[in-house]
Amino acid sequence: MGRTSEARQKILGAARSLIEGRGYSALGVAEICKAAGVPKGSFYYFFESKEALALAVVDEHWAAQRRDWETVLGTDADPLLRLRGLFEQTEAGQRAVQEGCGTVSGCLFGNLALELSNHAEPVRGRLQEIFDAQVDMVEAVVAEARDRGDVTVSDPREAARAVVAQLEGQVMFAKLYNSPQRLSPLWDNCRALLGAAGSWTRSAGQA
Amino acid sequence: MGRTSEARQKILGAARSLIEGRGYSALGVAEICKAAGVPKGSFYYFFESKEALALAVVDEHWAAQRRDWETVLGTDADPLLRLRGLFEQTEAGQRAVQEGCGTVSGCLFGNLALELSNHAEPVRGRLQEIFDAQVDMVEAVVAEARDRGDVTVSDPREAARAVVAQLEGQVMFAKLYNSPQRLSPLWDNCRALLGAAGSWTRSAGQA
Repeated sequence: MGRTSEARQKILGAARSLIEGRGYSALGVAEICKAAGVPKGSFYYFFESKEALALAVVDEHWAAQRRDWETVLGTDADPLLRLRGLFEQTEAGQRAVQEGCGTVSGCLFGNLALELSNHAEPVRGRLQEIFDAQVDMVEAVVAEARDRGDVTVSDPREAARAVVAQLEGQVMFAKLYNSPQRLSPLWDNCRALLGAAGSWTRSAGQA
Repeated sequence: MGRTSEARQKILGAARSLIEGRGYSALGVAEICKAAGVPKGSFYYFFESKEALALAVVDEHWAAQRRDWETVLGTDADPLLRLRGLFEQTEAGQRAVQEGCGTVSGCLFGNLALELSNHAEPVRGRLQEIFDAQVDMVEAVVAEARDRGDVTVSDPREAARAVVAQLEGQVMFAKLYNSPQRLSPLWDNCRALLGAAGSWTRSAGQA
């Protein structure tokens, strides 16, 4: 196997797995190539630098996650139920990773935002675009819920930012405590943030 | 300067500054000693390993932050106003760092949680203790607010977790977008999460 698109995919897959496990900074190109089972020359045929690889990993992960988000947020269910679907999907995803490799990996974008954003401007820019897009998608659903009278927010964009921040904060704790159950309260917290009818009396006994 | 406590402090200060700027994994002991202006031999006199240094940096930072939190949360002001003070203090702190070095550094504990928790168990354990303590402190204030009828939460601990998660999520975005203003909505978001009277109609026009 040499300079084939299969080799490129193997490098991307190995890099993503290593980045999720140990972060980006600690990785070397030789280690990535060894894990991918490709010669080091292949790496520089496909990627100009380790940073270029990081951007490609981010882009590939977002392409997949964007499809997942669009699927769950684009149904014809009630808007708030679509948001609940997003949280359930997130929790199920983290649970699946934990069952597969023993540890909750967290959010690749959040991990890289905190590890890299202050010393890798291209990565920072790409992650800003991704989180802007996530907020766009949530904002559209929140605006729809508001038009129906389901929520009371006066600023759907700020409310959407709060929801995405809540998601990232709880995913951080799910990773730190290696506990996907940490994501179970997201639905109640989201309804409270949005002032959903009756939600400000939080349900008892959540995980 | 050799094996003095001054040398230890210089190592700790340099390490914290470098970790905040570039993360932990990318650092080497030689680089830390060079920045601290101490010989490499001094490092191993004070610290068994780089990980031991990371734990010492975390402990020192938490000792200071804990005092700040206790001060602002321990006043005799109304409980919700104490929480507002916590958010204002956090925003002012991130703004001061940005003014000093050009970039928002984020939360040292959140940064290390995402960078290290899956491959440095001692650091994970220490960060869990710190976030547990933060949740304890917020929970006490939330319970007091509930006893006064200021908020409607049924589970003060889960509500406190949501508040700390919101804080960490918004601090992540303050770092990613290099914008301390991202922290301004924390007060409105906290009141919404807690079901504070009237808060679920969010105030308009926030930053």
